[in-house]
Amino acid sequence: MHSGAPIRALVFDAYGTLFDVHSISIACEAMFPGRGADISRLWRTKQLEYTWLRSLMDRYADFETITRDALVYACGALGLELAQSNALGLIESYRQLSAFSEVKDALAAMHSRKRAILSNGSPAMLNTLVEHAGMSRLFDAIISVDELKMFKPHPSVYGLATRYLGVSASEIGFVSSNFWDVSGASSFGFRTFWINRNNSQPDELGFEPVAVVRRLDELLPYLN
Amino acid sequence: MHSGAPIRALVFDAYGTLFDVHSISIACEAMFPGRGADISRLWRTKQLEYTWLRSLMDRYADFETITRDALVYACGALGLELAQSNALGLIESYRQLSAFSEVKDALAAMHSRKRAILSNGSPAMLNTLVEHAGMSRLFDAIISVDELKMFKPHPSVYGLATRYLGVSASEIGFVSSNFWDVSGASSFGFRTFWINRNNSQPDELGFEPVAVVRRLDELLPYLN
Repeated sequence: MHSGAPIRALVFDAYGTLFDVHSISIACEAMFPGRGADISRLWRTKQLEYTWLRSLMDRYADFETITRDALVYACGALGLELAQSNALGLIESYRQLSAFSEVKDALAAMHSRKRAILSNGSPAMLNTLVEHAGMSRLFDAIISVDELKMFKPHPSVYGLATRYLGVSASEIGFVSSNFWDVSGASSFGFRTFWINRNNSQPDELGFEPVAVVRRLDELLPYLN
Repeated sequence: MHSGAPIRALVFDAYGTLFDVHSISIACEAMFPGRGADISRLWRTKQLEYTWLRSLMDRYADFETITRDALVYACGALGLELAQSNALGLIESYRQLSAFSEVKDALAAMHSRKRAILSNGSPAMLNTLVEHAGMSRLFDAIISVDELKMFKPHPSVYGLATRYLGVSASEIGFVSSNFWDVSGASSFGFRTFWINRNNSQPDELGFEPVAVVRRLDELLPYLN
């Protein structure tokens, strides 16, 4: 089912890949009835845009700041008044996301390999997230882009994983639900797997994953 | 109305700033009745995303290639079959955009200063566009990011304008309808003007323009 060197380590994106961001939409809907889906969609779009734009501008701000800025934009663009307490509550919801139902067992089944998270999230956000989900012992490393002051998909970010894990790029299996993240990781030299939970359209960035799966446990056959 | 050194040169973004991209939406609607607005919105979103992502990935492709890739994505995501002839026709429409009605007279009125275009567009796209609009004699330089293999808002792109015009950053007035472009140019050190034709929400990227106007001719009082 695969070719080349064995996969010695697995590196996972966090938001949307291991952790379900759907509860964000529910929290938005509770605060702004009828507008939850609009807010969460625009909020996420701008959150990503700001990571890319600030990286290119060489004006890094951490992911929590960017998440807050994107929320301010989204509410402003939709003509909604964002109270300070609501903003704090919504940002806080990013720290307490649930893992997708199959994630914990699937990660445990991959125990013979090094496992790590590589995320745009700030260290404080990621550590809280993993502890809250009771998954701290499932990872050899929780790696934030923060030390580089640069977001995905800059190659240096993917390079962090090779350094932390002591494994070369071609021996790393990289797993993300974001196709652009898969593209960046493929471009860097990782063996990539796209988790396409919602039948999304792949981006046209010149790079393809090794395989596409719908859930994390569907990765296991590719690791034999 | 302004402070600091006089503005010795004016640098303009092209698409959406000087040239009206609305005809793209009309062409989309003609090919895919009822879906024109959806296509053109998603197409534009992905076109910009791909410029940022490829810049960060260090995988430059020229703007015409990216524009075509983004169109392929948009039609795929919307479940629409894109014939090769339709793709070529839509890409071609980018070469023949009309200038906004006030642009030619406003540029002529700014003749005492150097004037340039600084755009993500490829040299071939930009030259055709400016010639088609009969505006070749109104510019001292038509500058494409292509020679750097990097898109806006990377600082090096704005640096091109200082080099081509022989004017320092603080003496350049930069004009764009894209707030993120204004942010990148402000971060670089230009005096920036945001053309907000459609009452859009400003992005939260930590930089503000010197002034906001609704049309190009409203810039003139700031240049006295």
